[in-house]
Amino acid sequence: MALKFRTVDGSVCAPIGFKAATVYSGIRKAERDDLTLIVSDVPAVAAGVFTTNQVHAWCIKHNRERLAVGNDQIRAIICNAGNANCCNGEIGRQNDLEIEAAISAHLRDVNPKNRAVLTASTGVIGRKLPMEKVNSALSTLCARLERSEARAKEAAAAIMTTDLVPKALALEFDVNGAPVRVGAIAKGSGMIAPNMATMLAFITTDLAISSSVLEPILRRVVAKSFNCLTVDGDTSTNDMVLVLANGASNVSSEDSHASFEEALLYICQELAKKVARDGEGATKLVTVRLLNPPQFGEKIAKTIAESPLVKTACFGNDPNWGRILVAAGYSGVQFDPQQLVIRLAGHEVFVRGEPTAFDPNQVRSAMKTEDLIIELEFLSADAGAAAREAIQCWTCDFSYDYVRINASYGT
Amino acid sequence: MALKFRTVDGSVCAPIGFKAATVYSGIRKAERDDLTLIVSDVPAVAAGVFTTNQVHAWCIKHNRERLAVGNDQIRAIICNAGNANCCNGEIGRQNDLEIEAAISAHLRDVNPKNRAVLTASTGVIGRKLPMEKVNSALSTLCARLERSEARAKEAAAAIMTTDLVPKALALEFDVNGAPVRVGAIAKGSGMIAPNMATMLAFITTDLAISSSVLEPILRRVVAKSFNCLTVDGDTSTNDMVLVLANGASNVSSEDSHASFEEALLYICQELAKKVARDGEGATKLVTVRLLNPPQFGEKIAKTIAESPLVKTACFGNDPNWGRILVAAGYSGVQFDPQQLVIRLAGHEVFVRGEPTAFDPNQVRSAMKTEDLIIELEFLSADAGAAAREAIQCWTCDFSYDYVRINASYGT
Repeated sequence: MALKFRTVDGSVCAPIGFKAATVYSGIRKAERDDLTLIVSDVPAVAAGVFTTNQVHAWCIKHNRERLAVGNDQIRAIICNAGNANCCNGEIGRQNDLEIEAAISAHLRDVNPKNRAVLTASTGVIGRKLPMEKVNSALSTLCARLERSEARAKEAAAAIMTTDLVPKALALEFDVNGAPVRVGAIAKGSGMIAPNMATMLAFITTDLAISSSVLEPILRRVVAKSFNCLTVDGDTSTNDMVLVLANGASNVSSEDSHASFEEALLYICQELAKKVARDGEGATKLVTVRLLNPPQFGEKIAKTIAESPLVKTACFGNDPNWGRILVAAGYSGVQFDPQQLVIRLAGHEVFVRGEPTAFDPNQVRSAMKTEDLIIELEFLSADAGAAAREAIQCWTCDFSYDYVRINASYGT
Repeated sequence: MALKFRTVDGSVCAPIGFKAATVYSGIRKAERDDLTLIVSDVPAVAAGVFTTNQVHAWCIKHNRERLAVGNDQIRAIICNAGNANCCNGEIGRQNDLEIEAAISAHLRDVNPKNRAVLTASTGVIGRKLPMEKVNSALSTLCARLERSEARAKEAAAAIMTTDLVPKALALEFDVNGAPVRVGAIAKGSGMIAPNMATMLAFITTDLAISSSVLEPILRRVVAKSFNCLTVDGDTSTNDMVLVLANGASNVSSEDSHASFEEALLYICQELAKKVARDGEGATKLVTVRLLNPPQFGEKIAKTIAESPLVKTACFGNDPNWGRILVAAGYSGVQFDPQQLVIRLAGHEVFVRGEPTAFDPNQVRSAMKTEDLIIELEFLSADAGAAAREAIQCWTCDFSYDYVRINASYGT
């Protein structure tokens, strides 16, 4: 299937009317930019999806409040890296609000009554923000705002914590001849903590779309992208996906919605895969794909993707179909092993209740790839039945480095 | 609280009327005994608890059928190590029944109609049993049967796969002056597979007890012992706990039930801890203890115990309270972090929503122990309320060796 969209440069600055800036304030020890600001020239519609962890940071509360009812007055996202601003007492809430107020004041044309600034944090939990440093960096940050590829690149890098590579993407598609753009940056490489944690994605678009349309599109897309991603099964206190839609393309037709959803899904799936591939200590992206899955098949895919035994086998290029089958078996989802086929890196290793006579060395060689696919096909008793939609889930392998990074973090 | 029982030697042979034997048949490559037989001189009441994994071995099916209705005619447990007899087609079922028939025949006084032999397997899944070798070893096995400490020791060793140490225990307690004994052997060191997997426990007692009393006691005990054990969250195809009660002590009074349950709980908890301590690559036993836990607190304890981030922090002696809090937070169980205290190796690190001013080096030193306790206390809003019963869960840390063992298993 040909894609209906093309990639463009600039990530969050690719859509019209979005600027970005970064600065080093001193939140993190290493002298790497740690504050990132994304601003829309005009008030934007916003939607968000947030961590379900009941222990969560002030920024999660902050954004949930601002987005509780469809909000079309959002102007900015401010993100700090190095401090999660979480579990640090009432002072954390005050600091979060202070930052919003300061950004509103610096941007001048932002009405503070609109509660127009969203916040995000990622880093160590339980620590207080160095507010003096943050405050004195904010005017420089705002002064640097620019719509440029360079700024977008700096933004993708400044939100990183333990990530090894920046994650960014932008697409353009046409609606009745008029171009619309969607851009995004993301971070996350396994919840290397709460200490240095968190999956963040910030998405901008110049499509004109109402909050009541944007919100369900984002939910559907996240369900098929970031929510299909698991590095170690841990859910951070600060995870969030935010979308700002500022309407600057002047495209507002209903025709645009399907293309937009398709583009957003592509972007979010690509970013999710980038996050998995950059998982702590990862040597490969592992895709668990279920063909013709039973009801609640997502749970089978996730249980396989989260099994430490499956993940260490992927690291060791071990064609260990048994571990995959066993994880499926304890997922809690009903299926018949007698109607199951398991393929490892394209090789059938288990068919209808029994292993095939596969050559272990051949499969082992095939598993030595940076892009390993574990496929489970659930055969239908009824040959004429239409196949149910496939399910995919992304993770990475489990290596010595995962243990090293996570065991030695505090030292 | 003084224990009402004393430890005795001999594990499964400690109770009157139980014999054991082992032999090397050639199921496993290494020349280590791989068949274990436990026999009661007279028909015994039996009860069992089995894996909930819907993918399971023939022995699980075998025993479930024999124990479906209270069975008081059980004479033997035959266990092989090295082959799980699972996912290997219809031939696996036939072999399983063949072994039962052969044991019945060799023991002579066993009526095959009673379906009196329980089976257990642990090892590689998807492979056929070498039945010629097994059959020719069975008569030697039966000829070796003996009630002795030596045989009991051999049995504890012969059921091991990747375990590093045998796990066995026996207790004696008095009921109105008459002694009753309970003995047990167990194996399991993390589900290093399905390939070399499985938690097995075989328990014998000379108490006279009916199946309708024994069954619920075993369920309660397993819920507070083996079911509080997690090494990597994976549930094997072959897990089982079996109890045989042959009545040879002639103690049958109802007075005995409470003492028996207490002794059984002690044995099963000790064995569960031994399994956790012997987890693959483990350097320490980790106990997650919840004081005054909320409803469904077991889920909080298990989520913490299964978090790879918590387990790597334990390995690295990292006082990372955040990972513990976050795991509790995504367990799905409601609690208020503002009413929570977290203690690591006896040190308070988090109190009512905020970290304490603990000295990381001091806590780090305290964590360098083979017996690490993570304690969460849930404070009551109502100071006068009675504390709810504490919950415990056992696991081990997550080390480089876990990855090494599991990544290189197939090679």
